[in-house]
Amino acid sequence: MASFNVPDIVVGRLPVYLRVLNYLLAEGRQITSSQELGDRLGISSAQIRKDLSHFGEFGKQGTGYDVLFLRDQLKQILNVDREWKAILIGAGDLGNALAHYQRFADNGFDMLAVFDNDPDKIGKPLGRYTVKSIDDLESFITENQIEMALIAVPAAAAREVAARLIDCGVKALLSYAPITLAVPQGVRVQYIDPVTRLQHMAYYIGSGDK
Amino acid sequence: MASFNVPDIVVGRLPVYLRVLNYLLAEGRQITSSQELGDRLGISSAQIRKDLSHFGEFGKQGTGYDVLFLRDQLKQILNVDREWKAILIGAGDLGNALAHYQRFADNGFDMLAVFDNDPDKIGKPLGRYTVKSIDDLESFITENQIEMALIAVPAAAAREVAARLIDCGVKALLSYAPITLAVPQGVRVQYIDPVTRLQHMAYYIGSGDK
Repeated sequence: MASFNVPDIVVGRLPVYLRVLNYLLAEGRQITSSQELGDRLGISSAQIRKDLSHFGEFGKQGTGYDVLFLRDQLKQILNVDREWKAILIGAGDLGNALAHYQRFADNGFDMLAVFDNDPDKIGKPLGRYTVKSIDDLESFITENQIEMALIAVPAAAAREVAARLIDCGVKALLSYAPITLAVPQGVRVQYIDPVTRLQHMAYYIGSGDK
Repeated sequence: MASFNVPDIVVGRLPVYLRVLNYLLAEGRQITSSQELGDRLGISSAQIRKDLSHFGEFGKQGTGYDVLFLRDQLKQILNVDREWKAILIGAGDLGNALAHYQRFADNGFDMLAVFDNDPDKIGKPLGRYTVKSIDDLESFITENQIEMALIAVPAAAAREVAARLIDCGVKALLSYAPITLAVPQGVRVQYIDPVTRLQHMAYYIGSGDK
């Protein structure tokens, strides 16, 4: 259902809208407004209306949005009204945290297995998983039609891991390795690097010091 | 050294430029070009030159950039040519991974303490830390002049934690809690939520299915 010509920055805000709608539903709310959503998210109501208008009409002037309807529409737009099969590469401290992270399953991301190359970790339990050998990566991906992977390996290993994942047909990589990966057309990659985030904020909060 | 009128999206790319320059230095490289940086980062050389031009002239046409000089300039621009004192709130699985993450210290972010409200965790070792009680949060921040905090607590606790941090003068929050926080002018907040990142990618890779 992806529309052409929707700026990526707009697409990136949709999961945040979805998240706040889920909170509203959990609170038992049935109706909301762009004003309320904007207040909760610290952005303008006009921005929210404009973002949503790329995808259709979801509310009526004066009556607001039906929370459940808008939530379901956003799930459909984002293609998360289905399950996604994912794997995790890396069973270190970060891999351990990700293997225990309940919100993946809660949001339809089914983490099927955890892989590592360390003989001391392979075969050992990690949360509800038993760590698999990286040697079995290709066969597992193919047999289970894995579409997404989380990369939680050191930077020095990330390129090779990404290449192997892509070769097997994985289409989306979420990498915690602090290095930029080259991916072919049709493959998506996103990065999580807390150091770059702290540096980004240091730019602003440090400017008073100089 | 923050300049006015630099788009935030440009500021957000500077830490990534800094990261690749550090890799080039580690490889023993002395000179680079916007072309090479662009190739490594998957963005155009024109974009890199334009981004850097907001802050000055860092290279000469035809001779490229001095890697060390540009790296040091970027550190200065980002205000990371100094140490930053930070704390971590939350000693769960994610807190454990963050407490062990060596790259904070490697990049000048000095994580001084870890806090939790769980009596079973308080006083116990976590990496090189002994988990402190959240009751001691305010006095620790004040005594140690903490400027940054990482929030790794459940969403339901994040708002209260953020409010307490801000009340004590913390100016930058990196929150792993999946909820939007309201912060006053002068305080920066960034979020890390892997679920929103997976959903963002699902938008693109799922569109062939419908």
